[in-house]
Amino acid sequence: MKLTSKPSRQAASDAARKWVYPFREGNAQMRDLLGGKGAGLAEMTNAGLPVPAGFTITTEACNAFYQAGEQFPPGMWEQTLEALKEVERESGKRLGDPKNPLLVSVRSGAKFSMPGMMDTVLNLGLNELTLKGLVAATGDERFGWDAYRRFIQMFGKIVLDMVPAEFEAKLEEAKRKTGARLDSDLAARDLRQLVEAFLALVQQHTGKAFPSDPQEQLRLAIQAVFSSWNNKRAIDYRDFNKIPHDLGTAVSIVAMVFGNLGNESGTGVAFTRDPATGERVLYGEYLPNAQGEDVVAGIRTPKKIAQLHEEMPAVYQQFAQIARRLEQHYRDAQDLEFTVERGRLYMLQTRSAKRTAKAAVKMAVDMANERLITRAEALLRVEPNQINEFLHDRFDEKAKEGAAAQGRLLATGLNASPGAATGQAIFDADKAKDLGSRGEAVILVRQETNPDDVHGMLVARGILTARGGATSHAAVVARGLGKPCVAGCEAIEVDPEKRLLRAGDKVVREHEEISIDGTTGQVFQGRIQTVPPDLSQEKELQTLLEWADEVRRLGVWANADYPRDAQRAVEFGAEGIGLCRTEHMFFEEERLPIVRQMILAAGQATEMEDSLAALQRELAQASEERRPAQLRQVKDAQGKVERSKAIKDYHGALEQLLQFQREDFKGIFRAMGSRPVIIRLLDPPLHEFLPRYEELLVEVTELRVRGNNPPLLEEKQGLLRAVEGMREQNPMLGLRGCRLGLLYGAINEMQVRAILEACCTLTREGVPVRPEIMIPLVGHVNELKLVREQLEAVARQVEREQGAKVPYKFGTMIEVPRACLTADEIAQHAEFFSFGTNDLTQTTFGYSRDDAEGKFLLQYVQRKILPDNPFQVLDRSGVGQLIEMAVKKGRATRPDLEVGICGEHGGDPSSIEFCHGAGLNYVSCSPFRVPIARLAAAQAALSQSKKESDK
Amino acid sequence: MKLTSKPSRQAASDAARKWVYPFREGNAQMRDLLGGKGAGLAEMTNAGLPVPAGFTITTEACNAFYQAGEQFPPGMWEQTLEALKEVERESGKRLGDPKNPLLVSVRSGAKFSMPGMMDTVLNLGLNELTLKGLVAATGDERFGWDAYRRFIQMFGKIVLDMVPAEFEAKLEEAKRKTGARLDSDLAARDLRQLVEAFLALVQQHTGKAFPSDPQEQLRLAIQAVFSSWNNKRAIDYRDFNKIPHDLGTAVSIVAMVFGNLGNESGTGVAFTRDPATGERVLYGEYLPNAQGEDVVAGIRTPKKIAQLHEEMPAVYQQFAQIARRLEQHYRDAQDLEFTVERGRLYMLQTRSAKRTAKAAVKMAVDMANERLITRAEALLRVEPNQINEFLHDRFDEKAKEGAAAQGRLLATGLNASPGAATGQAIFDADKAKDLGSRGEAVILVRQETNPDDVHGMLVARGILTARGGATSHAAVVARGLGKPCVAGCEAIEVDPEKRLLRAGDKVVREHEEISIDGTTGQVFQGRIQTVPPDLSQEKELQTLLEWADEVRRLGVWANADYPRDAQRAVEFGAEGIGLCRTEHMFFEEERLPIVRQMILAAGQATEMEDSLAALQRELAQASEERRPAQLRQVKDAQGKVERSKAIKDYHGALEQLLQFQREDFKGIFRAMGSRPVIIRLLDPPLHEFLPRYEELLVEVTELRVRGNNPPLLEEKQGLLRAVEGMREQNPMLGLRGCRLGLLYGAINEMQVRAILEACCTLTREGVPVRPEIMIPLVGHVNELKLVREQLEAVARQVEREQGAKVPYKFGTMIEVPRACLTADEIAQHAEFFSFGTNDLTQTTFGYSRDDAEGKFLLQYVQRKILPDNPFQVLDRSGVGQLIEMAVKKGRATRPDLEVGICGEHGGDPSSIEFCHGAGLNYVSCSPFRVPIARLAAAQAALSQSKKESDK
Repeated sequence: MKLTSKPSRQAASDAARKWVYPFREGNAQMRDLLGGKGAGLAEMTNAGLPVPAGFTITTEACNAFYQAGEQFPPGMWEQTLEALKEVERESGKRLGDPKNPLLVSVRSGAKFSMPGMMDTVLNLGLNELTLKGLVAATGDERFGWDAYRRFIQMFGKIVLDMVPAEFEAKLEEAKRKTGARLDSDLAARDLRQLVEAFLALVQQHTGKAFPSDPQEQLRLAIQAVFSSWNNKRAIDYRDFNKIPHDLGTAVSIVAMVFGNLGNESGTGVAFTRDPATGERVLYGEYLPNAQGEDVVAGIRTPKKIAQLHEEMPAVYQQFAQIARRLEQHYRDAQDLEFTVERGRLYMLQTRSAKRTAKAAVKMAVDMANERLITRAEALLRVEPNQINEFLHDRFDEKAKEGAAAQGRLLATGLNASPGAATGQAIFDADKAKDLGSRGEAVILVRQETNPDDVHGMLVARGILTARGGATSHAAVVARGLGKPCVAGCEAIEVDPEKRLLRAGDKVVREHEEISIDGTTGQVFQGRIQTVPPDLSQEKELQTLLEWADEVRRLGVWANADYPRDAQRAVEFGAEGIGLCRTEHMFFEEERLPIVRQMILAAGQATEMEDSLAALQRELAQASEERRPAQLRQVKDAQGKVERSKAIKDYHGALEQLLQFQREDFKGIFRAMGSRPVIIRLLDPPLHEFLPRYEELLVEVTELRVRGNNPPLLEEKQGLLRAVEGMREQNPMLGLRGCRLGLLYGAINEMQVRAILEACCTLTREGVPVRPEIMIPLVGHVNELKLVREQLEAVARQVEREQGAKVPYKFGTMIEVPRACLTADEIAQHAEFFSFGTNDLTQTTFGYSRDDAEGKFLLQYVQRKILPDNPFQVLDRSGVGQLIEMAVKKGRATRPDLEVGICGEHGGDPSSIEFCHGAGLNYVSCSPFRVPIARLAAAQAALSQSKKESDK
Repeated sequence: MKLTSKPSRQAASDAARKWVYPFREGNAQMRDLLGGKGAGLAEMTNAGLPVPAGFTITTEACNAFYQAGEQFPPGMWEQTLEALKEVERESGKRLGDPKNPLLVSVRSGAKFSMPGMMDTVLNLGLNELTLKGLVAATGDERFGWDAYRRFIQMFGKIVLDMVPAEFEAKLEEAKRKTGARLDSDLAARDLRQLVEAFLALVQQHTGKAFPSDPQEQLRLAIQAVFSSWNNKRAIDYRDFNKIPHDLGTAVSIVAMVFGNLGNESGTGVAFTRDPATGERVLYGEYLPNAQGEDVVAGIRTPKKIAQLHEEMPAVYQQFAQIARRLEQHYRDAQDLEFTVERGRLYMLQTRSAKRTAKAAVKMAVDMANERLITRAEALLRVEPNQINEFLHDRFDEKAKEGAAAQGRLLATGLNASPGAATGQAIFDADKAKDLGSRGEAVILVRQETNPDDVHGMLVARGILTARGGATSHAAVVARGLGKPCVAGCEAIEVDPEKRLLRAGDKVVREHEEISIDGTTGQVFQGRIQTVPPDLSQEKELQTLLEWADEVRRLGVWANADYPRDAQRAVEFGAEGIGLCRTEHMFFEEERLPIVRQMILAAGQATEMEDSLAALQRELAQASEERRPAQLRQVKDAQGKVERSKAIKDYHGALEQLLQFQREDFKGIFRAMGSRPVIIRLLDPPLHEFLPRYEELLVEVTELRVRGNNPPLLEEKQGLLRAVEGMREQNPMLGLRGCRLGLLYGAINEMQVRAILEACCTLTREGVPVRPEIMIPLVGHVNELKLVREQLEAVARQVEREQGAKVPYKFGTMIEVPRACLTADEIAQHAEFFSFGTNDLTQTTFGYSRDDAEGKFLLQYVQRKILPDNPFQVLDRSGVGQLIEMAVKKGRATRPDLEVGICGEHGGDPSSIEFCHGAGLNYVSCSPFRVPIARLAAAQAALSQSKKESDK
């Protein structure tokens, strides 16, 4: 926050500033200054719609209020009274006039809607005297006392910081005494007594009488609304929704109109289109003879808006027309509040309607088809991440209804991370990890989670917590992992000691099944059938994505390791495979023993072969006198090589793997047809394929202490030594990627042979192929140069053998800063770059993702040390800077360099926007994020052209 | 290698090129083209010195020879014959003239001297006929036959690729038959028979007669010399000395003069100053009646050059005068070759003299004092790394002589890495590691080493191998580790099975002591007293370093963790401490238990305190209804905090550590006085201070299986869990540096308090202090901002408590790429930057040094994938690019930003040159490298001003 150095000059300039805007002076563009509500009321006023008289105190006034230590800025109060006079003139009433009193509401309203987060005071201006005037004016004594009672109650809670429950208790007491069932059953007399009780409560709580001066009431209410900007609820909401904390709230003061003046009165809310489905129908609720708060509070059950049509057809007609007009005017679905006072309609609010993902997509497509908006606007109307909701497994709706009917709905918590999951309830992370690792479906249930639980969360199908909000650890981690999570489900009680949860009188014990719906927050007992997403049924989404494809410049590819993933990626619209990780194929059950055999033999075999080659080179150069000895050495070494078990094992395993890999690649190429497929050569440290060191260490120690099985001990010790020899302090930065290829060239050669053989076979079958071979983790141009030369020789050799030509490319993954810094050199030997932003983020920050996310990154984001988790949202100023540098340098060397991104960021909309700006050719992401990426890429293109045309 | 696309045009242009330069056409500046030898002979010729007639074939001809597939380039042979004619004219003799034959030598000579690496042929031009002419001309038949026999022998070996031993055998046979003791005892008759035997040998080996046509001899000899550029010896030598392989060798053809024409003849080599000590005396050897090769071959013991003064005073006078003239002319000590033929002096070579470090320093200082060279030139005459030789432990010379006298000198190998060490001979790396880790002095003895031995090499005092050269694994690793190494000591035989070594008839068994001198290559039995370096005795070095200090712009600081290191650093000329690592203090024996107590309690204690603070914040904001419950929670938490053992342990340990650290810092500040001291706050992952996980795991498993000590098992299990909780997959990239400080703020606060309290005490004592507090591993400006704000509050608090002002600075270590990329932001909160180039290299390349050096980096350097080990020589194009960016961005924000480097590169001359160019304020290195850095910094300044004045 900036403070000016000379407060006295500041005060002087503040006094000259305009803090207050009558509705007629505002418009819809002034949201920053007047808040959404104030701007909407002003816009409606100027559009000639029936809006009560009023004015708005600006958000700047709110900020000045905080800067001055919670004091109104100079001039603000005077301008408020000035504006009030205008309202009085317009309404013909006067605040505090005992004969014809003006009552007002004092309403908060920030730039971005924060529903229910801040405070509003109604019926302000009432006291013993004005009450009489109100009764006289309305001719309704009961109404008058009810209004007064509501005012004291609301003012007490919001302005005087009193406990609502105490008022409620008095109200209940009154109802009990009089036998009233509803508030509205209380007579004027009862309400009058209640007012007296309320006033006494205020006296008791504050030590002072309830403020009876209406101007004093107004002053205090404005202060209270300003203060509500910084209540905890509001701060948390802004944190979660990434709304800046320095915007401030505006305050609108509006002449009261009353929906509770009998059956010709009423109040309601309505949407111009169905916010759940997007259908074009007026959708909303209406409560006759009620004030707005009654609708929100849910005390009485409101009627469907259609009822209004029957009860007050003229009013309904007028309202429906206004709704259409507002939608046309704002060119978007509106969320409206209105009040009917004795047959006269008043509009109290219009704002853009919140909507479900499904509704957002349908509304956008419909409106574009209706020519209300352009297709470009339609594309910008849907938040790409919302599409996620179309893509997760859902519970079968029928099955869910059935479960609810059977009474299996246990509770509803916060819908913290979307998706649906069923599994055994497990009450600690260790056990969850054990079971989950064995492939069992587990729901981790905790009071709340902390970083010690992450290992369990990683393998759980879903997470349920009894405490914590949308920003709690469970919620944040689950969203990060893309797993369903219901958080803060306070209605259940978790007992980790007894290993059970209670919900009311129901009990779920460990290993019993539960089902959680992270999209709705519901928790069920037992199993519920899930259904996979079926995008082909989503016509509007398909339409929207087709429009996106027409607009976007970025290609959208997918990361896929198996033919079935490749198939799904194509269905979702992927135009290529940006990353096919060959190591996943190595982990398959029938292959792992072969892979282990290869790895355990690789070191010795390679060393023997290298040393034979070295001896042969020396022989060629040896002097005559040295030659016989040298020849003997070569022969010895050849003999050793021929007899070596290691070499037999190594090449035998490679030969077997070649068969497997060739079939793997055939499947993928077949699925992708003429689309490009980038295959990354083996990348992870080899010890990842071996048994875990710690487990072997325990086994060996046990065998050693027991001493009962020497042969097994010896075998395990041998394995332990081998694994120990390959262990690394920091495997992320160790012997992996192209470094492996440079040491154990035969593995790479096998993979390239498998790729080329697969391609040749398909080519002969007439299936087009576009293989791109990616050499990972290059940091120095020489690494790439050497590996590529070696492998291109293999590729040409296979082509010769098979008599086919394959349009292969060689390129590299850019994953370490040095590759970006020297991209001009690297591009000399790479036909394509693919940014591996996971590793690039790790090395640029110096974070090991495995360690950082559990140990400190969450805290970093919570404490705003970092704006986002850089593994989810690409860090533009650091990692992004390197990417831009690499693209520029790479293209300087090779203008047609194909550049893409295949890290997880490839599916994040903000990161996609960055990639568009950086001039990448494509982004590659998980198949499930392909639709999101298509939309995000279109939005990036649209924002850029907007920016350019704005220039 | 670049090949032009049109060979015919190339050939045409080659033919027009000048390939041959008579001596009178060359000069000293033409080393690139004529090689060192050719340029020297030309320069001497033109200076009017007595040089035999001759000419030089250029290095370009050599390169063209290789490009043409080992063919002379067009025109070269014709130009050679042309130049030969001029020699014939000048000498009055003719090649192949039976009456008055010209004999020539054919000598190699590259730009950089490669002594003994390439080949030379003498006496070329002899055959049956010309021999007669030679005998007639010299009147010495024996000489004639001896010359002929030498020629055949040398030509056979070098040109005809024959085995020298076969010639030697014939020679020995002849001596045995005739009873001759020395070669010179053989009579003309004997030599004639030997010539016949040699010629028969040639016929037998080549299947052809010895080439008798002198022109054919010349052609073949030139070819052979060209070819010798690429013999294995020469390639290895260039690899080791980083001489490019594409320079090529020149070939000089020189009219023969004979030092073996009786006692008025002779040959010798001499230095214009003593190459061992640098003293200004004519130093060299002289062999009467001998050819040059006899001196080099060491067959006869030569006389000191002073003898010449007595034997041929006039010649000596002339030679001494020439020596002085050449030194004056070349402005450097010269290495001269000369021959006296029947009382007439001929100069055959002059070149810059190789010299020991000591001599280099003394010569440079003396010559500057003599005004032969400027001080700037003196500074450039010493290779900074040579100063290393002044800084290592050495064997006491007397003790070494004594050991030699006792017959304890076992053998002499290659002086692969300087320094002296004594210890038990140990024959495998595992055992070396075990003993070395326990602090025992170990010399690792291996046939040769490989990466599996590195763990043993790390703890050994020195390394001895029987095989391998200066670029062998042992040599490279030892130099990297700064440990003494004698490599390729072929005279010893290592028997790892029997665990002993043999040297002749001596045997050293495992655990017996040996001593190795890596500076000389000597290996001794038993212990030899070592002496530490004493720079204060090295007057010339002191002088040179003072001159360096006058010239350099870069400051030279030292890395020092203890007062004694700080003291030494100051003695060596350090101007500040660039890195004081506080964690080393934590490892001291009496402190480690306290540190462990702190660490084991830190997590729980911090969590409890954080959660209490959070509850208190919530209480302040709680609504009335929530307040009582909230208050209860706060009181509960307070109670827990008060009763908590973890909190007591944590703060108790911190309090104890505060005392220790305060004393540590006092000692260092006292040693440094008014010089700046940069103290780095705790950096390593905390688990480094705990017992090793694997060891605990074995202990616990043993206890569990044995089942005989449940209480101990439980205790160890608790510890195991704690250590497991802190383990990381990639600790290098985990919870360390400022990340620790952000999670466990109290540790940083304790350290800053200790620093400030120490400073306040000293300030009151009148000792000046300049503390600079360094926050490590910052990657985002917010990390620095938060930590600094917290710690600056502590600093001010201590100043208030102590009533003193301390001129402290806060800054950061730049160790991850992101810090460089965003240095402009970071500089807003940093008063200084210090580049931690070890970590920056790790993250820029994505290399874990621990893993990379053992697993692949050595291969990378050997295979020239990387030009150097980037942990030794700063990688300019990657890491350097980041550093330059950071300096630029940092200074843009804060022009007076103090910038230095504290990684190991701070002591490497090439890296220092880079730091100078990048505009750093200082380099900081190990105290022992401070003198090296002072000189290197001066050289960097001088090269820069030279470059600028050259512009």
